[in-house]
Amino acid sequence: MPQEIDVLVSEVGPRDGLQSIKRTMPTKAKLDWIQALAAAGLQEIEVGSFVSPRLLPQMTDCASLVKEANKLEGLTVLALVPNLRGAERAIAAGAHKLTMPPSASRAHSLNNIGKTPEEAIEEVRRVCALRDSLPIERRPDVEVGISTAFGCTLEGTVSEDWGIEMAGLLAKAGADSIGLSDTTGYANPAQIKRMFRRLRSEIGAEKMAGAHLHNTRGQGLANVVAALEVDVTTFDSSLGGLGGCPYAPGATGNIVTEDLVFMLEAMGLHTGVDIEALIVAREVLLRGLPDEAIYGNLPEVGLPKGFTYANEKGAR
Amino acid sequence: MPQEIDVLVSEVGPRDGLQSIKRTMPTKAKLDWIQALAAAGLQEIEVGSFVSPRLLPQMTDCASLVKEANKLEGLTVLALVPNLRGAERAIAAGAHKLTMPPSASRAHSLNNIGKTPEEAIEEVRRVCALRDSLPIERRPDVEVGISTAFGCTLEGTVSEDWGIEMAGLLAKAGADSIGLSDTTGYANPAQIKRMFRRLRSEIGAEKMAGAHLHNTRGQGLANVVAALEVDVTTFDSSLGGLGGCPYAPGATGNIVTEDLVFMLEAMGLHTGVDIEALIVAREVLLRGLPDEAIYGNLPEVGLPKGFTYANEKGAR
Repeated sequence: MPQEIDVLVSEVGPRDGLQSIKRTMPTKAKLDWIQALAAAGLQEIEVGSFVSPRLLPQMTDCASLVKEANKLEGLTVLALVPNLRGAERAIAAGAHKLTMPPSASRAHSLNNIGKTPEEAIEEVRRVCALRDSLPIERRPDVEVGISTAFGCTLEGTVSEDWGIEMAGLLAKAGADSIGLSDTTGYANPAQIKRMFRRLRSEIGAEKMAGAHLHNTRGQGLANVVAALEVDVTTFDSSLGGLGGCPYAPGATGNIVTEDLVFMLEAMGLHTGVDIEALIVAREVLLRGLPDEAIYGNLPEVGLPKGFTYANEKGAR
Repeated sequence: MPQEIDVLVSEVGPRDGLQSIKRTMPTKAKLDWIQALAAAGLQEIEVGSFVSPRLLPQMTDCASLVKEANKLEGLTVLALVPNLRGAERAIAAGAHKLTMPPSASRAHSLNNIGKTPEEAIEEVRRVCALRDSLPIERRPDVEVGISTAFGCTLEGTVSEDWGIEMAGLLAKAGADSIGLSDTTGYANPAQIKRMFRRLRSEIGAEKMAGAHLHNTRGQGLANVVAALEVDVTTFDSSLGGLGGCPYAPGATGNIVTEDLVFMLEAMGLHTGVDIEALIVAREVLLRGLPDEAIYGNLPEVGLPKGFTYANEKGAR
């Protein structure tokens, strides 16, 4: 991550948010939104997913989004790729970083991608081999986020030992970095600390990616605090918590970027992100998806009186 | 706190929740609710406030509530008292513990109770003198929660040095225990850790009370995790986050008891509280206040598959 920030907020709304809602956002509206996100100072944006258009028609324009987002100065452009075919398309489009989501839960893995976890690891190995076949200047990073690492709606408890073992196997398969995802909103702060400590000891600090957390049970920011305690410095989040659970008002999908950035900056952790500009980006998002439910407490209430950003604070 | 639990969840809904809404709950409905809360295993309930009935007509039945709640086995019955007159009434009713809320913010203190913080400390001294004049078996505990300790909607930043100095003065004035309150939802996790560490070093662990946190900006449970890191073991919360900010959907007032208990138990911290019974208590609350907005993510989504309470978990 760039030296000048303390914590990297990686925006996943255009991928995780949009794939969780029914409507399709027009490409032009997505681009306006991505531009507004970058203008707010977000340095990493997952712009879409190279899945089969048959499965997720919301994502058919992913290659155009990558190409356009690549024009934004200083932005790292991420795309989710479920398999080798997706990786080929993402590389052709010029994505800087590919993210892959193999699942620790066997039931979830079989149900979602028709592969066992071991087969999903082999797919990561194939994508890393493709990466290594490219000229060095064209090689994207391959980042893996282990899905359902903290529990699964199908299996319930997922073995923590297996999650960590899987991280080790993925590192050996060639992944540049590996993080843990609370896909289901099952994680608790004690588990977050335990698992990220073990992850570091398994794969080493240089291969550690961040935490992908959901706020389904209201535990999202609490889990961020726990992860910060064990020196996790990258967090995925989604503007307006787009994609929140429709039957649970306030239960967002991903943690809300606005609330996350506010918390980090209030804690004295510099993110490089401007909160007022995020509020503007919410309006841009809603212009592209009128009347969509979005979330976030900070945007409703506003910044506290006397609030200062981390880089404006004096030494304590 | 009783030996057999790890963290004490102190329910403040019947006081903080009810005083923040416009409607008055009938006494019988309040009692049904308090009984349901106690039946869920909550060991401490703040049943009301001995303020002037002119100021808060919702609280005129506080003496009856204390007397009835005293009949519930094993329950510590708290009442808020703003001044000596309130303390006399609370003691006459038989409250086990009096809570007093002097404010660290000068502007908030003058605006709310027409007293400077120094005058409010003198009022605590008078209440402690009254306590000491009673036969030892009739003496209630006097607990102080320093309001606006983390910031104020009128003043903005509140001096942390002054907040801690005030805690020292309150200890000298005779308070049995002293905690810190984020009355305004301004606190951040770094500040929580800093302030509770300083509080302990100022007044000693044996006089430390807990954290009274609000969720206005979605930071409530994140602040709990930070407080747990510095060994705070008592947290105020309100069933359904009653009294939430009406213009900020999801922005509750107090942190939500259901979400708090879920988090603590998932972390392996035994609270003695049954989450399903809290869900029942929500229904009892809503019978007494039909259509009132209440909050909470866990109640909407339910417990994770495979969830176990702290005292059911095996050794890790």
